[in-house]
Amino acid sequence: MNRVVCFGEIMLRLNPPGYLRVKQAASFEASFAGGEANVAVSLVNYGLDAAFVTRLPDNDLTVSALRTLRGYGVDVSHVRLGGERMGVYFVEKGASQRPSKVIYDRKYSAISTAAPGDFDWNVIFAEADWFHFTGITPALSDSAAALCLEACRTAKERGITVSCDLNYRGNLWSSEKAGRVMSELMPYVDVCIANEEDAEKVFGIRPQDNNVQAGKINADGYREVAHDICQRFGCTRVAITLRQSLSADNNNWSAMLYQDGKAYFAKTYAMHIVDRVGGGDSFGGGLIYGLLSGRDPQSVIEFATAASCLKHSIPFDFNQVTVKEVENLMNGDASGRVKR
Amino acid sequence: MNRVVCFGEIMLRLNPPGYLRVKQAASFEASFAGGEANVAVSLVNYGLDAAFVTRLPDNDLTVSALRTLRGYGVDVSHVRLGGERMGVYFVEKGASQRPSKVIYDRKYSAISTAAPGDFDWNVIFAEADWFHFTGITPALSDSAAALCLEACRTAKERGITVSCDLNYRGNLWSSEKAGRVMSELMPYVDVCIANEEDAEKVFGIRPQDNNVQAGKINADGYREVAHDICQRFGCTRVAITLRQSLSADNNNWSAMLYQDGKAYFAKTYAMHIVDRVGGGDSFGGGLIYGLLSGRDPQSVIEFATAASCLKHSIPFDFNQVTVKEVENLMNGDASGRVKR
Amino acid sequence: MNRVVCFGEIMLRLNPPGYLRVKQAASFEASFAGGEANVAVSLVNYGLDAAFVTRLPDNDLTVSALRTLRGYGVDVSHVRLGGERMGVYFVEKGASQRPSKVIYDRKYSAISTAAPGDFDWNVIFAEADWFHFTGITPALSDSAAALCLEACRTAKERGITVSCDLNYRGNLWSSEKAGRVMSELMPYVDVCIANEEDAEKVFGIRPQDNNVQAGKINADGYREVAHDICQRFGCTRVAITLRQSLSADNNNWSAMLYQDGKAYFAKTYAMHIVDRVGGGDSFGGGLIYGLLSGRDPQSVIEFATAASCLKHSIPFDFNQVTVKEVENLMNGDASGRVKR
Amino acid sequence: MNRVVCFGEIMLRLNPPGYLRVKQAASFEASFAGGEANVAVSLVNYGLDAAFVTRLPDNDLTVSALRTLRGYGVDVSHVRLGGERMGVYFVEKGASQRPSKVIYDRKYSAISTAAPGDFDWNVIFAEADWFHFTGITPALSDSAAALCLEACRTAKERGITVSCDLNYRGNLWSSEKAGRVMSELMPYVDVCIANEEDAEKVFGIRPQDNNVQAGKINADGYREVAHDICQRFGCTRVAITLRQSLSADNNNWSAMLYQDGKAYFAKTYAMHIVDRVGGGDSFGGGLIYGLLSGRDPQSVIEFATAASCLKHSIPFDFNQVTVKEVENLMNGDASGRVKR
Amino acid sequence: MNRVVCFGEIMLRLNPPGYLRVKQAASFEASFAGGEANVAVSLVNYGLDAAFVTRLPDNDLTVSALRTLRGYGVDVSHVRLGGERMGVYFVEKGASQRPSKVIYDRKYSAISTAAPGDFDWNVIFAEADWFHFTGITPALSDSAAALCLEACRTAKERGITVSCDLNYRGNLWSSEKAGRVMSELMPYVDVCIANEEDAEKVFGIRPQDNNVQAGKINADGYREVAHDICQRFGCTRVAITLRQSLSADNNNWSAMLYQDGKAYFAKTYAMHIVDRVGGGDSFGGGLIYGLLSGRDPQSVIEFATAASCLKHSIPFDFNQVTVKEVENLMNGDASGRVKR
Amino acid sequence: MNRVVCFGEIMLRLNPPGYLRVKQAASFEASFAGGEANVAVSLVNYGLDAAFVTRLPDNDLTVSALRTLRGYGVDVSHVRLGGERMGVYFVEKGASQRPSKVIYDRKYSAISTAAPGDFDWNVIFAEADWFHFTGITPALSDSAAALCLEACRTAKERGITVSCDLNYRGNLWSSEKAGRVMSELMPYVDVCIANEEDAEKVFGIRPQDNNVQAGKINADGYREVAHDICQRFGCTRVAITLRQSLSADNNNWSAMLYQDGKAYFAKTYAMHIVDRVGGGDSFGGGLIYGLLSGRDPQSVIEFATAASCLKHSIPFDFNQVTVKEVENLMNGDASGRVKR
Repeated sequence: MNRVVCFGEIMLRLNPPGYLRVKQAASFEASFAGGEANVAVSLVNYGLDAAFVTRLPDNDLTVSALRTLRGYGVDVSHVRLGGERMGVYFVEKGASQRPSKVIYDRKYSAISTAAPGDFDWNVIFAEADWFHFTGITPALSDSAAALCLEACRTAKERGITVSCDLNYRGNLWSSEKAGRVMSELMPYVDVCIANEEDAEKVFGIRPQDNNVQAGKINADGYREVAHDICQRFGCTRVAITLRQSLSADNNNWSAMLYQDGKAYFAKTYAMHIVDRVGGGDSFGGGLIYGLLSGRDPQSVIEFATAASCLKHSIPFDFNQVTVKEVENLMNGDASGRVKR
Repeated sequence: MNRVVCFGEIMLRLNPPGYLRVKQAASFEASFAGGEANVAVSLVNYGLDAAFVTRLPDNDLTVSALRTLRGYGVDVSHVRLGGERMGVYFVEKGASQRPSKVIYDRKYSAISTAAPGDFDWNVIFAEADWFHFTGITPALSDSAAALCLEACRTAKERGITVSCDLNYRGNLWSSEKAGRVMSELMPYVDVCIANEEDAEKVFGIRPQDNNVQAGKINADGYREVAHDICQRFGCTRVAITLRQSLSADNNNWSAMLYQDGKAYFAKTYAMHIVDRVGGGDSFGGGLIYGLLSGRDPQSVIEFATAASCLKHSIPFDFNQVTVKEVENLMNGDASGRVKR
Repeated sequence: MNRVVCFGEIMLRLNPPGYLRVKQAASFEASFAGGEANVAVSLVNYGLDAAFVTRLPDNDLTVSALRTLRGYGVDVSHVRLGGERMGVYFVEKGASQRPSKVIYDRKYSAISTAAPGDFDWNVIFAEADWFHFTGITPALSDSAAALCLEACRTAKERGITVSCDLNYRGNLWSSEKAGRVMSELMPYVDVCIANEEDAEKVFGIRPQDNNVQAGKINADGYREVAHDICQRFGCTRVAITLRQSLSADNNNWSAMLYQDGKAYFAKTYAMHIVDRVGGGDSFGGGLIYGLLSGRDPQSVIEFATAASCLKHSIPFDFNQVTVKEVENLMNGDASGRVKR
Repeated sequence: MNRVVCFGEIMLRLNPPGYLRVKQAASFEASFAGGEANVAVSLVNYGLDAAFVTRLPDNDLTVSALRTLRGYGVDVSHVRLGGERMGVYFVEKGASQRPSKVIYDRKYSAISTAAPGDFDWNVIFAEADWFHFTGITPALSDSAAALCLEACRTAKERGITVSCDLNYRGNLWSSEKAGRVMSELMPYVDVCIANEEDAEKVFGIRPQDNNVQAGKINADGYREVAHDICQRFGCTRVAITLRQSLSADNNNWSAMLYQDGKAYFAKTYAMHIVDRVGGGDSFGGGLIYGLLSGRDPQSVIEFATAASCLKHSIPFDFNQVTVKEVENLMNGDASGRVKR
Repeated sequence: MNRVVCFGEIMLRLNPPGYLRVKQAASFEASFAGGEANVAVSLVNYGLDAAFVTRLPDNDLTVSALRTLRGYGVDVSHVRLGGERMGVYFVEKGASQRPSKVIYDRKYSAISTAAPGDFDWNVIFAEADWFHFTGITPALSDSAAALCLEACRTAKERGITVSCDLNYRGNLWSSEKAGRVMSELMPYVDVCIANEEDAEKVFGIRPQDNNVQAGKINADGYREVAHDICQRFGCTRVAITLRQSLSADNNNWSAMLYQDGKAYFAKTYAMHIVDRVGGGDSFGGGLIYGLLSGRDPQSVIEFATAASCLKHSIPFDFNQVTVKEVENLMNGDASGRVKR
Repeated sequence: MNRVVCFGEIMLRLNPPGYLRVKQAASFEASFAGGEANVAVSLVNYGLDAAFVTRLPDNDLTVSALRTLRGYGVDVSHVRLGGERMGVYFVEKGASQRPSKVIYDRKYSAISTAAPGDFDWNVIFAEADWFHFTGITPALSDSAAALCLEACRTAKERGITVSCDLNYRGNLWSSEKAGRVMSELMPYVDVCIANEEDAEKVFGIRPQDNNVQAGKINADGYREVAHDICQRFGCTRVAITLRQSLSADNNNWSAMLYQDGKAYFAKTYAMHIVDRVGGGDSFGGGLIYGLLSGRDPQSVIEFATAASCLKHSIPFDFNQVTVKEVENLMNGDASGRVKR
């Protein structure tokens, strides 16, 4: 069984019930989530071995967060206790023309104040086959970026495959800084994951004739983008998710895997969205599983896309589907007929 | 006022709130439902007299189930107390490409362990005009099948109209066994109700050029199916619901009534689904009401289809609509404009 | 900062959670709302100064209603305590072909039993630039109608702009009475707001070739309607909302502003509805803000339409959006992409 | 099986969840209740036949109220549809030194505007053995008082036992008017039920040395009170509940039955209160059942007191206990040990 | 770190919110619990290594139950999938004089139909120091009793300490059968745990002058009971919980540990109960931890009693306290002052 | 009408529903609270004019917090927008022997990073009669302490009465630092409020023979404490709350006012607690109101004590009672009898 190490932040996610706006809320549903933790949960759901590495303060919220991850089967034995606080984010679910909105309260979180030397990567990577992180972690702070570099170097030395989801967040850093920092990390990355905007925001690489705002996607232009990334950083694979936002409720969803000079496009799904947050991460989880399970490129990208399509129908960040459920959808059963 | 006797199982239905999966649930909404009980509730809502007959264990869940049915006006005076447990089922509401899922925990239920002789059908049918059951009841156990046969025979002897909704459930019995048992019961059935898959699953009778999984329905082929059922079992009427599952949220919904060699097709409704479970039963309820209220065949099938279309917009299994509300929809007001 | 005085009724709104029908409800979500109060809240959200004037009984529900309005920043210092009860209404949220349904229990409310002389309009209008009311208030009772007339006259004497949303309610009065009473009030009205049915129901003015029930709207015919209203009553502007009800969930939404002999049509939005009630009022709020902020007619109608489009995505009657959010939508970002 | 007819008002009861005050509430739990309806439910729970008679408006709240009563087994076939509204009341649950608070919004309710002639008492009383009403009903309006008189007279003519719970409500009428109206009705009453304050508030009959506010009760003085009531109005039995309010949470609870010149006192229960409202009505229900089941006076008062003690541990107005549960408590099992 | 293996049943626990009775419930809070699983959770909370062994059906409820246990850190790797259903129980929370009530629906559960040979005890006990089970497991079925015997024998052969909580359940078996079956198992038991009734119900061993129903406990008589158990079965320690039920809300709670001929009594706690179910199991967990952590007998019984006292203040079956929290209470801080 | 300015922090309060521990919570009830904001709300509830001054980040949580305060009638026009985050705290409600627990996540809050010069105290105090702050504010940071000093000086210059609730929080600063900082502020304080531990923790002034942990209070020793504070810092009045914690649920509650060399003790209330947090602040609110309304010292301390007694029965931090409700309790009606 392959083992994947995911490194990053896990936060307390608070969302008002239903379609209430944060300013209307008298209660919040509470869960725990974060880009890399979401991937780890996907992987254990598919039967892989996954560890999640982070730093968390020593309080009852951390007890609860670790219980949650451990419950799914994620190895949390490498989580370090320390620091002052757990990051918090508020998710307001959009509808129709009203966009979803995320309010972050993650500054000064325990992981953002961790520093190189806090983790013993050689111990952490002992049995690992794969290391995954996202562009959010280096965006948290300079020391978090340094930690990512430390982890990447150790992974490379040990011959471990490295994947990174660019996950550009404009409220954490500028395009300029993101480009600079990520360019240092990318040479260690074998598998690069991005959405339809990331490559442009981080590296200035953009497809021709594309207009995300207007909901139109020039799918073919992304082949070029992937090619450029491989050229510039030496990645062997680039996966790009392709989202057409028709409204907050309705999105079209597809993705491309670029490998060995060829681009493989998945089927497109017309989704009615239940919970949008964590959608990209569930793609990453599906992709890593697909690659580790030895599927052919077309099957890999179909798996990752179907997996993340299903995630959009499930509340909270974590995906909750089995390999069999993903395969049912990949194989064409998108009718939503009752199973009984 | 016509009196209809419905015989079958009523269960505790537990569903997580909203779109949560069963494995995410920390609470369940509780209601009571079952194929034949759902029909009984529809009928009393339309002003008919209906009795529901079953066997339930002597505990507080039964107190609650009977209060519920009695509240709607269903006669529960023929319910027998006894047996070990009430069946339970868990409903997980699907969304988009993720199908709804039903988990049954109904083995050893009080009605499944009832046996011929437990009910005095002559007393039960004393004032009855109609007897309704579904293919779920004989699927519960051999003794439940024997009870159905006993009831059908008594109904026939007393000149009572018998209707049966085939309601094939693959997790209760095999097609082979269903076919064998139902073939014994069908000769007593005057009005046969089925969905687009039942006839094939139970009797191997299928329309040409149909692909349910792909969401396409060859409506005309169903005329043939209905004709075959009438031929084989001597039914006078066959009603078939025609569901196109575009996704778990969006279905097209129509139906056909076959009678005297002619097929009557209802209007098709594009439905955005609130609660899918009980949809078929609300069709059965509308059909029986339609037939008993002396409408012409086109009006009967329009009523049954509109009634069940409305049910899909209502939480829980029971339909909650009045004759007037159904007629408004039949007569063309599908705009959903606010009534005030 | 412009000051707007809104006069009318505020009620306790009770709605079952989710899509439950009133007859299924074991609990109600409670909020406070009313046509003119909804407008006042929209206006303060946009940064204007707004007062809401009404009469309420001296009890804890009133304490709660006033806290709510005051919290938004609405001036409630002119609310009079007295009378026997606060009006109540029950909102049942429709879905698909099942319409939303409103049950009113508002008879004998404190404002409906108020009488001319109860309010000192000269004090109330001291700093005001604008007076807004709707056709619901004169429909409540003859004394409420007399109060409206008293207010309109004082406003006119003081040179205050008067707006009225016709808001015809068939369960409060007949078309005949509405026409008679409103015809007395309209000569004081500068800005008349109506939906696609109001003008016909109240004044018998209807567009050609229109069929609301069938969800079709002959937008151009409304120019004629607006022209007639201006001619008959001397209004300077008429704004008409144009709703195509495809189902209870899905509506197309647009609007027209008629001014100086010209009609300006807003973009049309395909809405997936979260809460329909208060939709028209949020249009009124957007329109008044648009006019007071000195925009050109096309921008005014785009603002009002976008504002009310967003309201349909928000639970409860009050709109909860900022000028910036409305402008984002007006300016074309209807993709619903996550803001983070 | 004895049949009891209860006549009065049933209302929509709205209470905030838990210990929230009404002015804090963003939702209300909804149930239906009323003094006489509460008694009817107690009686059917004990296996008697009970009918509830009232007038209710023709809307979905009435559908729900009738479903509720019918579900318990109460005969609602004599309920008349008509009138403008259903009464509403808001219950705020007290705690510790903060008292519970009831806000009534029941004016103009359908039953308060009903008039003599609206009910055919001879039909209603056809199979009845007992007629029960409370002092709340004549307090609603003069026509409601006239209806009570009409019912009492018919009951008397038919030889039906009449019970009345004085249930004085200071916010419905003055002591003076209550005394005048009740004095007309009392001559028809066989069994008079009162709490420790009613007799004084309505008839000016008070025990010596009693101070309800201070939580002290001179139980013996109540013998005198009961004796006086019998003397003055010719009642054969008087039952008085004896509540010592130590705080909103903790009450001591006992009662006295006066019959044939002798007073029988029940055991006193130290109660920790879950829901106080309906406590007195559950006593009335227990008393009527006790008398109809032919128990001796001591057993009757023990049953009524134990039944109403249990009610205080159950949410909402209706008692939910069986004869066996009451007898367990009467017989000394007050330990609250888990039943499994 | 000591390792404890717990063997038994885990069920879906469903309880109505707050103080609602099961027959009033429209929803249930869902958790997972069972006598031995509750002990395992206590132990991992105290930092021990614990495994829970059972058999569960292959469905999503099992996924959820295992996630829960795994989340706490319980080793579930020896759980076998198979069988037809998971047991269910309904908990109705009592108040004041109304007792809590448990309705079991656990027949035919997967563990009750497991049979000797289904578990490889030598593998399961590989690293174990302690084996714990309760009298509920052999009560489930004859094959479950045989499984217990098989496990006890293997444990004994491997020199593992065995503890058993008698936990007599009258609805699962008779005293006679319990006595017979338990007498076969007791010779393997080193540490016997019982409540104030168990020894009498199972073995007919009862203290003098005791009356549980009346809430009085002759603590000294229990010394005799413990002595008899040791004599009869060769146990080295007997621990007995001593509960005085003053009401469903208020209990006094203490316990005794008998060891080497001496009885050690813990402090008595006056408890205001939040959730009574699982109280005894939390005592077992505290006791096993106390013994394994090498405390002196007085400290052991104080720890177990304080731990289980705290459990009564926590919703659901599982205890949620740390060693430090228990020690704070043992050491005298029972004031409940806010920690901040 | 007197105007009081309160200065300090307002936070997002998150508490699990009911008695759930934070580590069990899947949702949190959300409200806004803080020592000085709680006082401001009490004051406006009593009819005074109160302003709350703080600094908050520019986001939707702040919109919601301000709406809440404004709704009560608190003047928030002097709140400054800025800074990075709003403080958050998690409240876990204790029961019986399990203490309530507060987890703070308030570091780096907007007010803790505000600095002298950020507020124009002369403008803020323009119409003010009274300035109130608590020992929590200077504990937040050195700059917050400097802000307090700046405010105190300005208040003194303008002849405004200053009150301070010592409110020692051990998790914010050490006794040593608290003593040093507070000693600089106290010379400006006219009215000092403290609980039974504060004076000792902050200034080392303690009553003789007192043992808070054991729930015993030597009330007379507090006279000495108050006298010492007046001597040392020149206060004219000292008020001390006297809480005996019998358990998390049950506290005895009283207080003392020391003025002109005399101590006035209030009645003691035996409280069953609904929500403990904010209890002290409601005392401060009652005290300031009492003093400003010109009552005699005994009446002042009775008012403050009764007001805060009632607060303990109300969910969330804010008190929700009227002057009349407090006076009813002061005047002896503690029976908790239903008001209707």
